[in-house]
Order: sequence, then structure tokens, then C-alpha cells
Amino acid sequence: MFSKMLKINDTGQMLPRRRINRVLNRAILASPFFLFPLFLLTFPEQMDTDVTYTYRSRAWRNEAATSGATVRTIPIIYAITATYSRPTQIPEMTRLAQTLMHVSNFLWIVVEQGTERSRSLNNLLRTSGISFVHLTAQENPIALQDCYPKKPFGSVHSRYAALEWIRQHAEPDGVVYMLDDDNCYDLRLFEEMRFTKKVSMWPVGLVGKYGISSPVIKNGKLIGFHDFRMKYRRFPVDYASFAVSVRLIREKQYINLGCQKGSNEDSYLNSLDLSLDDLEPRADNCTKVLVWHTKTQKAPPVQKKNLLRAKGIRKRIRAVGQTNLPRLYENLLKSDS
Amino acid sequence: MFSKMLKINDTGQMLPRRRINRVLNRAILASPFFLFPLFLLTFPEQMDTDVTYTYRSRAWRNEAATSGATVRTIPIIYAITATYSRPTQIPEMTRLAQTLMHVSNFLWIVVEQGTERSRSLNNLLRTSGISFVHLTAQENPIALQDCYPKKPFGSVHSRYAALEWIRQHAEPDGVVYMLDDDNCYDLRLFEEMRFTKKVSMWPVGLVGKYGISSPVIKNGKLIGFHDFRMKYRRFPVDYASFAVSVRLIREKQYINLGCQKGSNEDSYLNSLDLSLDDLEPRADNCTKVLVWHTKTQKAPPVQKKNLLRAKGIRKRIRAVGQTNLPRLYENLLKSDS
Repeated sequence: MFSKMLKINDTGQMLPRRRINRVLNRAILASPFFLFPLFLLTFPEQMDTDVTYTYRSRAWRNEAATSGATVRTIPIIYAITATYSRPTQIPEMTRLAQTLMHVSNFLWIVVEQGTERSRSLNNLLRTSGISFVHLTAQENPIALQDCYPKKPFGSVHSRYAALEWIRQHAEPDGVVYMLDDDNCYDLRLFEEMRFTKKVSMWPVGLVGKYGISSPVIKNGKLIGFHDFRMKYRRFPVDYASFAVSVRLIREKQYINLGCQKGSNEDSYLNSLDLSLDDLEPRADNCTKVLVWHTKTQKAPPVQKKNLLRAKGIRKRIRAVGQTNLPRLYENLLKSDS
Repeated sequence: MFSKMLKINDTGQMLPRRRINRVLNRAILASPFFLFPLFLLTFPEQMDTDVTYTYRSRAWRNEAATSGATVRTIPIIYAITATYSRPTQIPEMTRLAQTLMHVSNFLWIVVEQGTERSRSLNNLLRTSGISFVHLTAQENPIALQDCYPKKPFGSVHSRYAALEWIRQHAEPDGVVYMLDDDNCYDLRLFEEMRFTKKVSMWPVGLVGKYGISSPVIKNGKLIGFHDFRMKYRRFPVDYASFAVSVRLIREKQYINLGCQKGSNEDSYLNSLDLSLDDLEPRADNCTKVLVWHTKTQKAPPVQKKNLLRAKGIRKRIRAVGQTNLPRLYENLLKSDS
């Protein structure tokens, strides 16, 4: 039961617990009801670590039971979110976390651009109860070289960092999904992607002028794509529309996430050496929409600099004297930096 | 235990169950473990109704235990969402539902403009497991008269319909909150509003050029407002920033939701006859932001008419022959109409 319990600190290092596990396994097999409270008392610091997670949770065992699979065969979803500081970041991540709190056997790899992890984002992740790894990403030399003389987007570097974490730490039967913080996800999507052999695919709503981006399925086989960006792309799909198995990512020596906006997905899939036969259509043979590429409108300028320069705000705050406003703005600005 | 169990069909009518309750109360008091399975067998159709809900659920009792209150004093949150058909409706409602699934002792009053309830929205509500009432709203004569010669927004009619439902059916110790489908809500907000005497208030993020809209608190008392729309308004606040007790709404003969965009909240609060002393500051004396007024970008034209006229789509669908695309578009368009 405890053999798969891992302790991951939030910079992503894993600490194996074989010895503890051996003792625990025996103890628990001997008398679960008697020894478990004792375990809580003797290892109090274990229950206090906020990024400890068990792959084999109870919710997850229930799921295993309904899907007919044994506990050992239920794969973990590794979802990668490349994010950056902006006024809508905390609201959007809060909302997304509330969706992900429903998904069992899930690890959220959140990568921020730059060298420092935002404290408010880290608090959000800690209090959500979701298993997570919170990383930062500097510029990736492969990306810089590939894109020269142009510079790639920040999120490209973040995704390279997350894939590197997966290469080192993820379980081979897991599945990797790129999760945007402003999209809308139907919970059923996560169960569609869970058992991915190589790459699973499905439609995405609200993309481009066609209103949708989807694989084209004929007689149960994936024969092509329906997407507004068909030119020069072998795989004209959105990041939201596919998941890749950890095994496949580990097999490849080199993954190329591309440079140009709109072609990153194509580069990624091309570097995985796929034929159309390797793509597994999901969501009722690609007839259901379970994910939508929504975008949040740009917020008014609540960044530190702009805000405190904005006409009248400082004056107003001063005029009303000792009120809640200074602390309120302080709290607001903390979550932007 | 069962005396408060209600059956509400989704047009909003309540069916009292006094006789069933009397029998059940006795049976359950006599021997809960023995008789409950029997109850499942003898009243199978009861467990099948999809809008049956118990106010006294287990999650809710836990909450009561931690807040120190007795089960009977925990108020119900009646959240009103005025919504209308558009490409981003189903994605946004899906995402919001996944947040609300975490809130216990909660009833979602969803009101659509027009005369017909959207089937896909109804399906979404049914499968979410959230207690809900799904209404439609025609034009409200009070609103039409007040706004003459102009016409009020559709959402004004919807909110009148929801308040009328609350007047007739809600429990007096409940609390009423206007919930937008595109905002971001931190789950802690719902517990902040739960024990509202008259009107409780808190800051809202991402509103207007100040970046925030908030009550101003001095020495623990609400003395005014900080909002970009200060002129001509006694209560310059957003719908997201306050909740009203059911008791107060029932006390008033007439509630005016106003006409002009941006002044509806002011009209609503004015018609409740409030002084500043009646407003109860929450969220750590209005220093924390637990709700954000986000807006989703307008989606590409996936409405039926526009979409099938859009250049190339029909032709493309026809060209690829018998594939998943016709059914995919059919499913997509169903959720827009």
C-alpha cells in the first residue's frame, strides 16, 4: 500500500522512502486499525510536508474499481502549465485549481518564467490540496539555438523545463498534457486521456474561424485534421487537443517545441516520430467537445507601476486616512509580482 | 433528519413530503442501519429524481461541526446566474459548475432569457450533481415600466424571475448572491457570505481603472466605497461584491433592479432601504480579494448561421466524406441554440 508513496519537495527532487515503506508495509499488514494512529504520532513531520502525495489514494482506488482496471495499471496524469505574472494570473489559476481538485491521480507541474517562484502562486498551490511541482524556467539553450536570430516565447522555455522534469521523475505509464490556465476543461476529458499508448487526440472548441479544431475520423481511423491553420503543418492541432505517454517522451533523445506561435504543437508532435496510425482518437471518436480554447480579456492595469501611477488612486487612498485600502492594495499587488 | 428533505422539480415547484417524512422519521429513529437499505428498495423512484436535494447533507454537517454552529442554523446559499446562449456559454458554465461542486448547502438558480430552456445547459446542470433550479424569464412588467422608453437588459428580467422564486420558496435564513458565469470565485468566498444578517460586502478584483472595487473600512466600520463609478451612486459596487439575506428580500414589497448598465447594483441596494451600518464587511475587514470580475474574450462566430456560412467549412466537411465532422458540428451547434 505504501510502496509507491513518494515525497517530492517542490523544487522537484524525489526522496525515496524504501526503508520507511518496508517497516510500514509490515506494520500495516499486521494491524491497520491499531497501528495507523501510532504512525501519525511517531512521524508527525511526514504529515506536515505540503507536497507529499500518495499515488495510491482512496479516490483513485475507487476509480480503478469502476474502470475495471487493477490499482497498479491506472496511469498518472502529468499536467504542465506554463504561466507568468499578470493581473489575471491568480484568478485564473484559482479557478483552474478548483477544476483540478476533482481529478484523482494527478500531478500538476506549474512552471513560471524567470528565476523566482511567485509566493502567492505557491500559496495557492499549497492550499489547493492538489499534488504539484512548482518550477521556474530560465532560457533553454536548445530553444535559443533553434530559434536564432529570433527569441522563442517564454512558455517554450517553461515547457522544456517541465518535460525535463518528466524525463527524470515521471512514472513510465503516465501521460503528459499541456494545460493552459485560461482554457475550459470538462472533467471527463481527464479520463479520456488517462490510458494513452502513444498520443491520444480529441476536438477542441472555440479555435479559429472554423469554431473548432479536430482530427478527422473515417471508419474509426484518424485520417487528417480539420483546423484553420492547415498550411505547412503536418499536425495542425492545439496543445489542448492531445496527450502524450511518458514512455514515448522518454524514448526520444530530443524533443523540439518549435519557435513560431501556432507551430509549437506541430514541432512537438513531429519530433515524436509519429505516423497517423499512432494517434488514438478519443471523445466518442472525436464527436464530443470536452475542452475549449477560451481566452480571458486583458485586465485593467493593476500592475504595481501602472496602478500607483494611475490618476487619483494614491490621492484617494491618502485622503480617506487609516482604512483597509493600503493593505488591500498591498495584498493585490503581492499577487502580481 | 428527513423533515427538511424537499423534492424540487426543475421548473421550480416544490412537492412537500410530509407524510413520507413522518413515516421515515419514525423508521429511522427506530433503527437506522436496518431500515435504510429497505427504504432504498421500497422507494426506488425517489433516488432517481435528478433535482432532489437534501439540505442536511453530510458534508454540510461537517461544516456545521467546525463552525461551531448547530445543523439547523447553517444557512443555504441561493446563487443566481442570469445566462444566455452564446458560444462561450457551455464552456464557462462547465468551469463554474466545477467550482460550485465544492460548495455544500448550495442551490444554484440558473435563469435563461427567453421561453425555452437550453437542453445542453440542462444536461450540464443535471450531470454536475449540484442542487439547481433551471428557470426561464420573459420580460418583467416592472422592469419594462421603470425603463420606458428604453428597454432593460435581458439579465435584469432573469434576476427578477430568480428573486421571485426566492420570495416564494427559499428558507428565510438563507443568503442570496448574484453569480456571473465568467467571474473567478475563490471557494472561501462562499463561507464568508454564509452568515449574512442583512447585506455582507467584500472587495472585487479587476474592476475598472482602479483595479479593484471595495468598501472602505475605518475602525471596523464601513464608511464608504472605493470604486471607479462614484458619481450619482450611493452604492458604487459590483454584483459580485455583496450578498443579501433572504429575510431582507422577503421583507420588501418591491425590489428595483434598475435599467442602466452599471447602476443595477445601486438600484437593488437602494430598494432594500439600507444604511451604511447595515452593511457587514467580510474578507478580513475587506483586505482580501476572493472574487475577480473577469471577462472571457468573444469567441469566433460558431453560431449556427455564421458558422455554416463561413468560407470553406461546408465545402470542407462535404469533401472529406463520411467522417466525424458532421456529428461533431451538430453537437457543437446544439449547445449554442
